Amino acid sequence: MTEASLKVAIIGSTGYGGVELIRILLQHPQVEIASVISASSVGEPIAAGYPHLNEIMCDTLDGVDPKEIASKAELVFTATPTGVSAKLVPQLLAEGLKVIDLSGDFRLKDSSDYVKWYKHDPVDEDALEQAVYGLCEWYGEQVQGQSFISNPGCYATAALLGMAPILKAGLIDPDSVIIDAKSGVSGAGRGVNLGVHFSELNENFKAYKVNAHQHTPEIEQVLSELHGKPVTVTFTPHLVPMTRGIMCTMYAKLKAQVSNEDLVKLYQEQYAGRRFVRIRPAGTYPATKEVYASNYCDIGFSVDERTNRVTILSVIDNVMKGAAGQAVQNLNVMMGWEESTGLLFTPVYP
Amino acid sequence: MTEASLKVAIIGSTGYGGVELIRILLQHPQVEIASVISASSVGEPIAAGYPHLNEIMCDTLDGVDPKEIASKAELVFTATPTGVSAKLVPQLLAEGLKVIDLSGDFRLKDSSDYVKWYKHDPVDEDALEQAVYGLCEWYGEQVQGQSFISNPGCYATAALLGMAPILKAGLIDPDSVIIDAKSGVSGAGRGVNLGVHFSELNENFKAYKVNAHQHTPEIEQVLSELHGKPVTVTFTPHLVPMTRGIMCTMYAKLKAQVSNEDLVKLYQEQYAGRRFVRIRPAGTYPATKEVYASNYCDIGFSVDERTNRVTILSVIDNVMKGAAGQAVQNLNVMMGWEESTGLLFTPVYP
Amino acid sequence: MTEASLKVAIIGSTGYGGVELIRILLQHPQVEIASVISASSVGEPIAAGYPHLNEIMCDTLDGVDPKEIASKAELVFTATPTGVSAKLVPQLLAEGLKVIDLSGDFRLKDSSDYVKWYKHDPVDEDALEQAVYGLCEWYGEQVQGQSFISNPGCYATAALLGMAPILKAGLIDPDSVIIDAKSGVSGAGRGVNLGVHFSELNENFKAYKVNAHQHTPEIEQVLSELHGKPVTVTFTPHLVPMTRGIMCTMYAKLKAQVSNEDLVKLYQEQYAGRRFVRIRPAGTYPATKEVYASNYCDIGFSVDERTNRVTILSVIDNVMKGAAGQAVQNLNVMMGWEESTGLLFTPVYP
Amino acid sequence: MTEASLKVAIIGSTGYGGVELIRILLQHPQVEIASVISASSVGEPIAAGYPHLNEIMCDTLDGVDPKEIASKAELVFTATPTGVSAKLVPQLLAEGLKVIDLSGDFRLKDSSDYVKWYKHDPVDEDALEQAVYGLCEWYGEQVQGQSFISNPGCYATAALLGMAPILKAGLIDPDSVIIDAKSGVSGAGRGVNLGVHFSELNENFKAYKVNAHQHTPEIEQVLSELHGKPVTVTFTPHLVPMTRGIMCTMYAKLKAQVSNEDLVKLYQEQYAGRRFVRIRPAGTYPATKEVYASNYCDIGFSVDERTNRVTILSVIDNVMKGAAGQAVQNLNVMMGWEESTGLLFTPVYP
Repeated sequence: MTEASLKVAIIGSTGYGGVELIRILLQHPQVEIASVISASSVGEPIAAGYPHLNEIMCDTLDGVDPKEIASKAELVFTATPTGVSAKLVPQLLAEGLKVIDLSGDFRLKDSSDYVKWYKHDPVDEDALEQAVYGLCEWYGEQVQGQSFISNPGCYATAALLGMAPILKAGLIDPDSVIIDAKSGVSGAGRGVNLGVHFSELNENFKAYKVNAHQHTPEIEQVLSELHGKPVTVTFTPHLVPMTRGIMCTMYAKLKAQVSNEDLVKLYQEQYAGRRFVRIRPAGTYPATKEVYASNYCDIGFSVDERTNRVTILSVIDNVMKGAAGQAVQNLNVMMGWEESTGLLFTPVYP
Repeated sequence: MTEASLKVAIIGSTGYGGVELIRILLQHPQVEIASVISASSVGEPIAAGYPHLNEIMCDTLDGVDPKEIASKAELVFTATPTGVSAKLVPQLLAEGLKVIDLSGDFRLKDSSDYVKWYKHDPVDEDALEQAVYGLCEWYGEQVQGQSFISNPGCYATAALLGMAPILKAGLIDPDSVIIDAKSGVSGAGRGVNLGVHFSELNENFKAYKVNAHQHTPEIEQVLSELHGKPVTVTFTPHLVPMTRGIMCTMYAKLKAQVSNEDLVKLYQEQYAGRRFVRIRPAGTYPATKEVYASNYCDIGFSVDERTNRVTILSVIDNVMKGAAGQAVQNLNVMMGWEESTGLLFTPVYP
Repeated sequence: MTEASLKVAIIGSTGYGGVELIRILLQHPQVEIASVISASSVGEPIAAGYPHLNEIMCDTLDGVDPKEIASKAELVFTATPTGVSAKLVPQLLAEGLKVIDLSGDFRLKDSSDYVKWYKHDPVDEDALEQAVYGLCEWYGEQVQGQSFISNPGCYATAALLGMAPILKAGLIDPDSVIIDAKSGVSGAGRGVNLGVHFSELNENFKAYKVNAHQHTPEIEQVLSELHGKPVTVTFTPHLVPMTRGIMCTMYAKLKAQVSNEDLVKLYQEQYAGRRFVRIRPAGTYPATKEVYASNYCDIGFSVDERTNRVTILSVIDNVMKGAAGQAVQNLNVMMGWEESTGLLFTPVYP
Repeated sequence: MTEASLKVAIIGSTGYGGVELIRILLQHPQVEIASVISASSVGEPIAAGYPHLNEIMCDTLDGVDPKEIASKAELVFTATPTGVSAKLVPQLLAEGLKVIDLSGDFRLKDSSDYVKWYKHDPVDEDALEQAVYGLCEWYGEQVQGQSFISNPGCYATAALLGMAPILKAGLIDPDSVIIDAKSGVSGAGRGVNLGVHFSELNENFKAYKVNAHQHTPEIEQVLSELHGKPVTVTFTPHLVPMTRGIMCTMYAKLKAQVSNEDLVKLYQEQYAGRRFVRIRPAGTYPATKEVYASNYCDIGFSVDERTNRVTILSVIDNVMKGAAGQAVQNLNVMMGWEESTGLLFTPVYP
């Protein structure tokens, strides 16, 4: 730890996003975890609820007090449920804290979309205007030097990294985009309900929120911006009986004749220098386990001449690249550090 | 067992389809298993390789000898690998045996499709002409009284039962069909290779044979017939870290304004009297576990006004409705018995 | 369904034991389900919470009213949580109903054991005296013709069927019995809590209630009775990341020189005519999947001359033989029907 | 990477132990991977068979040539199958290479035990004499400065770390030790066979090599040495339907009256300064997931006054602490580096 290390706090430390932030930041050379915060278990050691942290992270949990946080830390990660960040972030910003918000509250620029898809009251407009959408591979320049980053959603990350280059290149019909997404169960968080009950999910595969998931407008917002005109997409999330991992299998109508090799080249150029995006050789496809517990997003292609469609497959670890890892990537870019600092975890395999 | 019981043989008894046939037929009131046959383990008790059959099925395995089979049985199930049935079935038919073939060898009416997608030599044309495609919910009348049934593929079954009614009703653009399919690993059979290695698949989700799976032309053949013109579809199979179950999530562009309720009504009418197809109430979706170890196919819908697309979800148990259960359903219909005889297994839940 | 069919009610129909009773009884030739009962969801169709029952079981849930139950049914299964049966069963018996209780409330003959291990008030002494412990393979004669059966616990069933014969035969030191038990997660029921959260259990193996599980005194009670003197055992339950299945790996010091073959013979004789106990050939061991969704208990042995100990392995399906299947077995024996009536489900494999 | 970094080679790089070594060593500040070696895929990029290493480890696989290895590296890890190391290690030592052998070939000091339990010819006696058994927490001083380390077996590691202190302290009857072990499937390696077929293991729990596993004499060898007299143990390995993790549930008769708190104290003292052993507070038990993908061994206790037995539970990640992580720990101690260098991976949770 150098003297120049940045002191950070984590609100929502007892959620899965929070403990993943701890796992990552404990190894980050420029960061010191100054406070782990949870509204529910103040005063308890964090390792009491997460024994894997025994003898690794011995801190007790602090309460959510913006002034106190500002006295301890310069930057705060809010890994809080939707609706909580909406209220909390303006207070944190008011204290002069830098904020990286892992919730969905500040991702949608149009408040009416937020109200419609999240079923919450609109968020604070000033805060919303400050929020920079932290998909570094596309908005890294905007992220740099900012104070408030809204960290992308897990599904949106996998979908956008896979779909944005081909749309931007004008190779597909923008009205034809279909995203069939599959996620491990950890994406649902640690809260208990029948929907995450082991015996209900194990040996089971199911869809949920069909045509109604709140990451839909987030995906559309970015694609529309890249396309220059409104884009709507069909999006279906499913639950896979595994803990970590997201795959998006995406379909679009081709407007031009391209080969898998052309797409590999296009994507490699688009993501040149972007260490966490890995393009698969033509004819091979990524699997979720190949990015397990890492910050990579792997992408593969299959152009089908019979149907004149392209199938694009992208995978991420939802807890890492889909949440905590990407948040640390945003931290690095915000601070002007090398994007991959402290994030070069090799995927755990098998 | 009544005196009128039919004596059947099962070739390929040591595969997953074969043992599932045994599980079903042991409870079938009209059938007697006269011979269990395996090319590889002749003379061994079938329970030696499948201890779950101890004290339930004590037979030893017979060899593959058409004449001997004909001396013991009237009908034979061929649960053999692709390419094996092609050679075997004509010999069995020549012995006067009725045949229900669970392989893919006799599903495609156009030999060039078979050669292209299966990478095998063309099958015997006489046998192919005799073969009736045994998707009972659509071709039950043709199945009745026949001698040779080609049992549909697992993916094709889930896809066709879910997609055929809306296509036939003219409600969708036939060029817009996309089928995103997910299967439990048992669909790959019992043969060993790295692709079915536990540590490679567990906590993993992956696609395979993207735009190249041999069930694609099978689906297209039936949809084209119903539509009256050629239909091509985009089809992506994936492996889910579970043993049993298939879900097809299917997408199409709507040509007319319909509601979920309209679709429920349409499908209920189409499948009236078809006991194994269950239509979900509007706004609810099936999960694979809800048909586990049963012969049901459950179907749900989501019409999306934003994109003017419909999402159709259908689930089956791949070993049962996708293979052995459907084969017994074909047996029942062939013989003029009630379609559900011996097949009313309640799904195992949880 | 013959006219002579018995009308039964199921209290606790919305638990896993309850729906398994439904799955079994729907196929039972002598039984009619007259009422499905749940304290929590009265008036709702049972299929609303369990869509796998759509079009199979269309009943709505009745409330818990002993008089009303008595007007509809002759026998009632109480698949209720511990503590609930204690209060309910005396009322049901008072209405002249036959009762098979799947809870643990009436298994321990000594009230002080119940108070100590279950942390509940003592149960009604009159009811307790009427209760016959329904481990049919050992107490079938006592079960016959009775009105109130206490159905054994899942762990106790696997442990006792595996350990009782060798203890009764005097071949082991009764002070040396150690039972290392492993269960699928469905044994914990459908209630939600962090202990059954998918992401906490998947890819995880853990112990719980070490030396403190309430099935310990149940096992000891039976072993003590067979031995003629008090026996204490060490018992450790563990959770396996799977839904169904229990294995007990049991250890004891041998007092005599015996071979695996001797044990196979001893057990085959002890369980002669007992269809649901299957003894493995010497040198082979059972796996939980080999009894999946069936009523079998498979048992194997390994005598170790180096240590002069025997290892006994027994497996059951916890929801079936460990709960609902055994309850129906008790029903059959109570009523004087063939023990296996309606219970000959072949294990689902794979 | 400092100039003082050690060049190492990995023989068996395409096995699970090999790729885990790569994952660890890529982050090790003192080590440079000079050669990845595999007998089977010479010349191929290692990432071809392990796409999770794409863009992370771009090396191609070298052949097994001791002279060439010696020209590139100073130390070699042999993550080779049993029987292969036996032949290879003497050649590597002859070239002046330091060796850390992850196979079982050089663990048993008595050749006749090796022949009996491993069913191989005896290994080279000179090499065997040089081999130091690398259980650092017990033999760290012997490891330091040595040239040839035999890395402990996965089961043996979990068993010994949990059982050695209480035996050494004289608190248990040495004839009473029973070890009931459970392992994730990755312990079986990447080789394909029916025993690691997904559909056979998923939703299944089974025992194997009961009283016949080759880690038994390894455990006995160490316990006997600590006890000063021969100790025999009963050992049962089981397969859990998960990829990583081992739990040993161990039982012994107490010779003295001790409390859980006493044991916590005893173990904390025994393992003082040993960073990778974590002792659980009295009354709590470790779960395998709490050490996932890390080098920790967590240990908990339950003294049972009723039976006068103690139950000890220890967990490790079999691929990490049970193989590659422990090998790197041995490397660190051999070289005189801090034991935990490059090994402080926080467990991946969930």
